[in-house]
Amino acid sequence: MKPDGSSLIGFGSGGPGGASFKAFDPAMDIFIEPSFPTVDASDVERAVQLAVAAAPAWAKLAGAQRGKFLRCIAENLESKIDDLVARAGQETGLPAARLQGEVARTAGQLRLYAEAAERGDWLDARIETAQPERTPLPKPDHRSMLRAIGPVVVFGSSNFPFAYSVAGGDTASAFAAGCPVIVKAHPAHPGTSEMVGRLILHAVRDCGLPEGTFSLLFDAGFEVGQTLVQHPAIRAVGFTGSLRGGRALTDLAAARPEPIPVYAEMGSVNPVFITAGALAERAAALVDGLHASATVGVGQFCTNPGLVVLERSSAAENFVARLTEKLRTTPEATLLTVGMHKAFVGNTERRARQPGVKMLVQAPMSAACGAAPVWFETEAKHFLGNHALSEEIFGPSSLVVWCENRAEMFAVAQRLEGSLTATLHAAAGERTAQRDLLDVLAERAGRVILNGFPTGLEVSHAIVHGGPYPSTSDGGRSTSVGTRALHRWARLICYQNFADELLPPELQNTNPLGLRRLVNGEWSSGRI
Amino acid sequence: MKPDGSSLIGFGSGGPGGASFKAFDPAMDIFIEPSFPTVDASDVERAVQLAVAAAPAWAKLAGAQRGKFLRCIAENLESKIDDLVARAGQETGLPAARLQGEVARTAGQLRLYAEAAERGDWLDARIETAQPERTPLPKPDHRSMLRAIGPVVVFGSSNFPFAYSVAGGDTASAFAAGCPVIVKAHPAHPGTSEMVGRLILHAVRDCGLPEGTFSLLFDAGFEVGQTLVQHPAIRAVGFTGSLRGGRALTDLAAARPEPIPVYAEMGSVNPVFITAGALAERAAALVDGLHASATVGVGQFCTNPGLVVLERSSAAENFVARLTEKLRTTPEATLLTVGMHKAFVGNTERRARQPGVKMLVQAPMSAACGAAPVWFETEAKHFLGNHALSEEIFGPSSLVVWCENRAEMFAVAQRLEGSLTATLHAAAGERTAQRDLLDVLAERAGRVILNGFPTGLEVSHAIVHGGPYPSTSDGGRSTSVGTRALHRWARLICYQNFADELLPPELQNTNPLGLRRLVNGEWSSGRI
Repeated sequence: MKPDGSSLIGFGSGGPGGASFKAFDPAMDIFIEPSFPTVDASDVERAVQLAVAAAPAWAKLAGAQRGKFLRCIAENLESKIDDLVARAGQETGLPAARLQGEVARTAGQLRLYAEAAERGDWLDARIETAQPERTPLPKPDHRSMLRAIGPVVVFGSSNFPFAYSVAGGDTASAFAAGCPVIVKAHPAHPGTSEMVGRLILHAVRDCGLPEGTFSLLFDAGFEVGQTLVQHPAIRAVGFTGSLRGGRALTDLAAARPEPIPVYAEMGSVNPVFITAGALAERAAALVDGLHASATVGVGQFCTNPGLVVLERSSAAENFVARLTEKLRTTPEATLLTVGMHKAFVGNTERRARQPGVKMLVQAPMSAACGAAPVWFETEAKHFLGNHALSEEIFGPSSLVVWCENRAEMFAVAQRLEGSLTATLHAAAGERTAQRDLLDVLAERAGRVILNGFPTGLEVSHAIVHGGPYPSTSDGGRSTSVGTRALHRWARLICYQNFADELLPPELQNTNPLGLRRLVNGEWSSGRI
Repeated sequence: MKPDGSSLIGFGSGGPGGASFKAFDPAMDIFIEPSFPTVDASDVERAVQLAVAAAPAWAKLAGAQRGKFLRCIAENLESKIDDLVARAGQETGLPAARLQGEVARTAGQLRLYAEAAERGDWLDARIETAQPERTPLPKPDHRSMLRAIGPVVVFGSSNFPFAYSVAGGDTASAFAAGCPVIVKAHPAHPGTSEMVGRLILHAVRDCGLPEGTFSLLFDAGFEVGQTLVQHPAIRAVGFTGSLRGGRALTDLAAARPEPIPVYAEMGSVNPVFITAGALAERAAALVDGLHASATVGVGQFCTNPGLVVLERSSAAENFVARLTEKLRTTPEATLLTVGMHKAFVGNTERRARQPGVKMLVQAPMSAACGAAPVWFETEAKHFLGNHALSEEIFGPSSLVVWCENRAEMFAVAQRLEGSLTATLHAAAGERTAQRDLLDVLAERAGRVILNGFPTGLEVSHAIVHGGPYPSTSDGGRSTSVGTRALHRWARLICYQNFADELLPPELQNTNPLGLRRLVNGEWSSGRI
């Protein structure tokens, strides 16, 4: 399986299009064939119209059929894992083992969302039966649930070419919820994107689903994405990437004649607080754990720990010295793109010049897109007075913040911007003494971690991958990972006094799908 | 109990403030004492800071305590119902019986939301227990739920001085979810607002809740509302009113450095489609039912049926003639405000001048704020070509759209903007033949009604009062009525590897609150 360089418009291909681009191998420092032309405006419109045409059938598609389709995509990915990993490896510089694991995770989340679609709990089906005799007014029959919102646009992310890209969590959860999806491919891995897109289309055909269920669009610039977000037929947007990019899309969507939601997962510093007690208990394990979490994926994870907050002590200084030594000997690795490498160099240079900031470690870098850890340290007073130090540097760079005392540590916590995660390491005996700090962290993050590390995201019913702004555009009301992700692609619908045969099966008396429903205020999986 | 004309800032009062205004009695055409000064900027800031200070305690407040507080407010309202109805009657021109019913409904919804808070199902508590032995990676313990979002601003609505105002659905659901509330009073019923505000504050004190739980602010203009929506400490906004007002607030909130959600319930035309079969079956009942629905509350309900779509036939013409006759003899009644009366006169005059639009009925009007039904008719071809005919006219005015055939009726449905409700009247034998029309209506509305009328809103678990834009600002993802309304004031939080005693009780092993939780993928009300 190889990419041929064309956008996928329903079951067809994009035309010759506009300015073209090629993938770039950041490890080898070379461009890779083929060329991917920017899709032209008429093909964008065709993709949207196909999605519009497919949407009513999709909104009615049974959960079982959505589940079958998602499982089919998962199988298709697994059947081509070698081809996918080879191409993705070239396009991202990521090692094969990581990419194999990511394909497995992507298939796993497709199957978990399939299960959610099949089970249907997420629909929140509710029934209030009529009471025609009630006084002073009869009570009507009301039955309500979530329904698919319609055509959705997903922006592929660069840092996870499978799990957050073409067949990643946004696409999978939108399909699971019953929405057609148009993916704007990330230009950093177009070949991988096209291959995955074709595997999705195989599943569309094999499952007998309508053309327009899925399209994949390439763009050398930003215009296609902007057109999609502003298109009146598009109902919602999923995005994973930078704060700047996410905010631009959110602003475009909010300014539409009819605003639509943008679920943008953006930057996050993922602070890690470490108490003296934790250092006394397990400094060596903390050095290893923090080092692993901060360097996995060359620091290019949204959950990368970018801020380490410590009370100054000789034990803490010793801890940082050991961590620094380990970082210094961390081999250089390849960043995803030339642009990211440039930003990493620029951002770390800028940080080095901030008042009160000292370089902790900066290993020499050689390869074009290579990066090794660049860590900084500063005093809490500088952190508290300089907002630039709160900003995420994407890549293997973190900032150690030294606090004079616990009050200052607490002040740093209160100053934090919204993050996907916030972590506290404390000793067993001092955990309850840290309750107030944990409360502040819970106000600042979507996931609070005790004695663990933020990277290594579990895809489950209970996970939350979302947090207060700026980590996400919707302030953490939703999650982009886990089965709650389906809720983003739906709205409420209520049927009043409907004849049973006109209701969707989810709300019919006999409960043919065996859903768990709230019937007259009580949960029931039975018939009425 | 009488209003004294001051904003309520926590347990204190607002200072002398700026430009003041008085309530206006639209039936008597006179201003009513006392004066209400616009709250000054320092008092606005004080209200916000008190809410900020109260928010952490509120986020942790047990559901039982929130429930007790809401029930206490309900009792306080009922204990002062005569005073409240007397003042509200003066300020709104609404009849006493309607206002008494509205107080009862308001108390009822406070109690329903109390029950939701006590029960805690809405929190969506989920637990995935750790699997330390899992390979290749151990599974951490994840526990997640919704948590209160923080200080919320609610804009009182003019048309329901109790149910959608100071202690109305937005306030009640925000309290139920665990958020402090600042209400910006609607200037049309400031005395009622102050009295209800004081009753809420009695409940705050009686329940031992912190100052800052509630504040009530008066403003002769728009500045206080704008300041609140833009204030960095405010986390969400509830609004019921015009499309113009709602969109202005939504735009302000979206442009903030940190955007926040605005749940605005705005205009809605609430189309009613009537088939030939329905007319053959029960024309007389349809005349009575539609007349009642279109004139209740002088047409000032958000669910007022503003569009009636019919296939032309002699039966349909006869139906409209009988309806017209009934409308013509409907007594004039008082609109809520001078501004609404002015808008009603202007909007109906403008509609009368639209090409292809004919006046069906226009009773003479005498009193200053009096209005009687003003109905229009037009052909589907004019409706389809003129967006102005899709716009809501607030008050007792509706538009009959005549279709040549069913295809045209279907085309009208497809052209509809988003509405809170859409209604189809069909005969028993033709219901399934209307399935495609019902599908289109379900795409355009939050609540689809078969053989009923849109007014008379049930407050329940299953109701949806929300719909696609422009009927609501969030496209119908949420509801402002019913127990699902709590979800608007919350975001997700996940705890990873937390010691049991550090978890909120909702997520602890012993399940001390007896919540229904999703534990390792299975619903359970037991302990772990």
